[in-house]
Amino acid sequence: MSKKKNTYWKDRLYEIIYEADTPAGKLFDVVLLVFILASIILVMLESVRWIDDKYHNLLNIGEWIVTILFTVEYIARIITVKKPLKYIFSFYGIIDFLSTIPKYLSIIFAGTHALVALRALRLLRVFRILKLARYLGASNQLASAIKASRAKISVFLFAVIIASIIFGTLMYLIEGEENGFTNIPKSVYWCIVTLTTVGFGDIAPQTPLGQFLATLIMIMGYGIIAVPTGIVSAEYTKSANKTGNKNNGNHDDIQLNSQRCQNCLSTKHKDDAEYCYSCGHNLHIQ
Amino acid sequence: MSKKKNTYWKDRLYEIIYEADTPAGKLFDVVLLVFILASIILVMLESVRWIDDKYHNLLNIGEWIVTILFTVEYIARIITVKKPLKYIFSFYGIIDFLSTIPKYLSIIFAGTHALVALRALRLLRVFRILKLARYLGASNQLASAIKASRAKISVFLFAVIIASIIFGTLMYLIEGEENGFTNIPKSVYWCIVTLTTVGFGDIAPQTPLGQFLATLIMIMGYGIIAVPTGIVSAEYTKSANKTGNKNNGNHDDIQLNSQRCQNCLSTKHKDDAEYCYSCGHNLHIQ
Amino acid sequence: MSKKKNTYWKDRLYEIIYEADTPAGKLFDVVLLVFILASIILVMLESVRWIDDKYHNLLNIGEWIVTILFTVEYIARIITVKKPLKYIFSFYGIIDFLSTIPKYLSIIFAGTHALVALRALRLLRVFRILKLARYLGASNQLASAIKASRAKISVFLFAVIIASIIFGTLMYLIEGEENGFTNIPKSVYWCIVTLTTVGFGDIAPQTPLGQFLATLIMIMGYGIIAVPTGIVSAEYTKSANKTGNKNNGNHDDIQLNSQRCQNCLSTKHKDDAEYCYSCGHNLHIQ
Amino acid sequence: MSKKKNTYWKDRLYEIIYEADTPAGKLFDVVLLVFILASIILVMLESVRWIDDKYHNLLNIGEWIVTILFTVEYIARIITVKKPLKYIFSFYGIIDFLSTIPKYLSIIFAGTHALVALRALRLLRVFRILKLARYLGASNQLASAIKASRAKISVFLFAVIIASIIFGTLMYLIEGEENGFTNIPKSVYWCIVTLTTVGFGDIAPQTPLGQFLATLIMIMGYGIIAVPTGIVSAEYTKSANKTGNKNNGNHDDIQLNSQRCQNCLSTKHKDDAEYCYSCGHNLHIQ
Repeated sequence: MSKKKNTYWKDRLYEIIYEADTPAGKLFDVVLLVFILASIILVMLESVRWIDDKYHNLLNIGEWIVTILFTVEYIARIITVKKPLKYIFSFYGIIDFLSTIPKYLSIIFAGTHALVALRALRLLRVFRILKLARYLGASNQLASAIKASRAKISVFLFAVIIASIIFGTLMYLIEGEENGFTNIPKSVYWCIVTLTTVGFGDIAPQTPLGQFLATLIMIMGYGIIAVPTGIVSAEYTKSANKTGNKNNGNHDDIQLNSQRCQNCLSTKHKDDAEYCYSCGHNLHIQ
Repeated sequence: MSKKKNTYWKDRLYEIIYEADTPAGKLFDVVLLVFILASIILVMLESVRWIDDKYHNLLNIGEWIVTILFTVEYIARIITVKKPLKYIFSFYGIIDFLSTIPKYLSIIFAGTHALVALRALRLLRVFRILKLARYLGASNQLASAIKASRAKISVFLFAVIIASIIFGTLMYLIEGEENGFTNIPKSVYWCIVTLTTVGFGDIAPQTPLGQFLATLIMIMGYGIIAVPTGIVSAEYTKSANKTGNKNNGNHDDIQLNSQRCQNCLSTKHKDDAEYCYSCGHNLHIQ
Repeated sequence: MSKKKNTYWKDRLYEIIYEADTPAGKLFDVVLLVFILASIILVMLESVRWIDDKYHNLLNIGEWIVTILFTVEYIARIITVKKPLKYIFSFYGIIDFLSTIPKYLSIIFAGTHALVALRALRLLRVFRILKLARYLGASNQLASAIKASRAKISVFLFAVIIASIIFGTLMYLIEGEENGFTNIPKSVYWCIVTLTTVGFGDIAPQTPLGQFLATLIMIMGYGIIAVPTGIVSAEYTKSANKTGNKNNGNHDDIQLNSQRCQNCLSTKHKDDAEYCYSCGHNLHIQ
Repeated sequence: MSKKKNTYWKDRLYEIIYEADTPAGKLFDVVLLVFILASIILVMLESVRWIDDKYHNLLNIGEWIVTILFTVEYIARIITVKKPLKYIFSFYGIIDFLSTIPKYLSIIFAGTHALVALRALRLLRVFRILKLARYLGASNQLASAIKASRAKISVFLFAVIIASIIFGTLMYLIEGEENGFTNIPKSVYWCIVTLTTVGFGDIAPQTPLGQFLATLIMIMGYGIIAVPTGIVSAEYTKSANKTGNKNNGNHDDIQLNSQRCQNCLSTKHKDDAEYCYSCGHNLHIQ
């Protein structure tokens, strides 16, 4: 697994790009984060007409700088990774591609420039990057609570959607097209807007019967919000109790890092670990 | 209770239609689910004017196919069940009838066609069907938590409604007809819209005093949402603790099935049970 | 405390009106509840213009019947109670008075009729009446959870109000009168509408800076809803645990009634108790 | 640290202004609170046009009284504190300055008067003042629960913001300028309005695809509110359990006061403490 000579720079680059436990890796992630944010701010500014009118050239140059840097990063990722195809068709691989290509396309095809906005999806990488920091403890516990209650929340959301379809259809029958409930899909849309207590008010029931049914939907929506909350609450209490039994301090964030042992694949090494806690493999020399 | 020869095909059909533990039963439920969804999508598409204008004939044919299949299913259900009248006047029996009949009525009476939308109610059957799948564990625990807190949530909703009537009446006195609070029922409706934090904005207080009272209602609504949430949360923690004490794994879904012993009527048999755990009756040979 | 002869009918009437454990007392409460509901429905119907135009005389007669019955009840309450003044100036005494008097006033003074709507406040008596029923267990536990977290919720609501004043003022400075934020009180009102996630939309920020601040307010409002919920949840879990340790059944509603021993003033007697569990005093013969 | 003679009045004044455990200190805080509230009400009234038109002179006099009193207080705070610069550049020091200066500025520069509204920030001092009262127990436990879940809530809010940027961008691509989504920042603003279930309705999706995506955002917003709630709930249960183990009464508010030992800087002394629990330094003689 480690031909030290030839592939040394590749391994080194891999460590910088894909891991974040070395100073260089951390720096790379921070710089990447800054550029992702910059690229998103650029896209945002461009979408504001008067800013685009005034600073079009400046924004365009910025766009190209970001695009070229993203291209370089994309190529580097492909070269260093052991299984390039797996990366290319992975979730992040596709996002990386989609956020780089529109600028090039915009030279050839007009009108595709708006797709640059897809770059916002790169923000998701923030999770991977920030995971390394002190939030890890928090989000891990959080993730396990959400994971444990996923099935239950699915059932819940499913029930919400079915209720919305049924009540939306009833509202369509009651209110009809003249009161803004022009068709069933729109009526279902209104029902979800109401059930989730968003309440835009672009469509609102006008007939007394419709308002009465709307009242039922609202109270239902107000009441059943308790369900997902109760689920996550309970799961979280459970998982917090488990952790709490092991170590009782308030600051139970042991600094774990995102490194994966290349020998036994075990993760969650302590931040200052030199050797894998599980198999004794040296974590830094590959 | 089991005349094996004559009624064999009936029993077999019964098992397919009403139970879901045999492969055939599962297949039937999945196919039924697909047709229910298809029928609802048809109704939705029909309600969108431009789609109906364009594809009226196609949608009409689809409607008839679905209606005939539902009719066949309805008749099969009546034939195979032991007590047909009980099924016919059961909750699902009425829904099944209501979702089949409007299409036939629409030949004779014009204008009754819109009632086809009642078919959306058939979606409720999804709960019965999906109960069998892996969600069972989740929804059972959920159901018991909701059941345990039903009385408390009733008290809560009751309080919400009384508060809405009182505040709605006060708002009517304060704001009056000129600001949209045309009568007390409408004012109560507005109050529920506000208390549940939906806030359509089709009616909004204009006088300073009305806005002040609205402020109170909103803060009250914002604060008391904690009550149902707290209740379900606590009940759920309690019921989760109970389960947690028995088996500590994360995947505590013992696969129970939806079969009912025809001898002693006990339910919740394990998935691989051959005999009723309660009376020893053979579950598969009826 | 018990001169059996003279005051027997008074005691009897007292038991009927103020308690609800005898069949007569229960009947009285149910009848009262029906009349309260009827009176409120009357007021509501009257407020709907077209109904009032059509059935004015009928509604007026209904009003008078309800008013006279309420008057009789009010007088009976004063006569039978030991300390009439205490009742008259009690919370319910004032409400009872306010819901009876407007109809009489409307003969003398025009325009006071609208105050009949104050009768909605009588609905609060529902709590006292329904307390007797099976909801008691639920609402008692609920009440103690809310009571225990009252101070904490006060702090929370206080913080919400202060945040609203501060942010409302800032929004007034940022948006100004031309965008609907005409003065600080209105701006604070808008801020509460936003913070509680009601969002009427009658006023909405128009400037980018205002929208940015609104974003902060909304996210804050969305996040801090967790605080009261968490508080009530925890208190409720605590109080549920206490009860749970004593009796572990799901249906832990022992039927307690609202009677108070006239000897030792202890409450929460079991529904079938003949003698006070604390001092042995006969509960029914006074 | 204590030259008793010369600086006696300073120490005394310090105790009155900065601490709240002596009667004089309590009185000062209450009076200050009253003046802060009065000053805010003045600012509010001034912002209402018709009130300002009618009572301009009265309000102006009130303003000057409050401003002069605040100036005196500000100077007193600077004189008595040991490190004036630290106070001046502290959070409260800056707020105190900002809420005093605008009135003076308004003599010289026109148009700066509106900044008087910044005085609302002084309301934050309420927390410091009320902390002393019986709410202490409540807010301490609350604060520790929020503190413990701060990291987790940050992760959550972070996720909300990222989701808003991504979905906002998608909505901009789908709906476009003609439906009110004029640029990406506005679109992100709309997305936060929707995700937090506020739903102003000033902008609302018009296209079916936009409405579908909006539906997803709403259900997501409705579902993920469970996350912060669950977190605070669990943390609060945990911290309540800890306290509950030590003393089981309902009123577990040990009266701690806001005094800080001038020797070892330890806080949270019991209300009746004469000597620092940590270093034995006399708390009252400085």
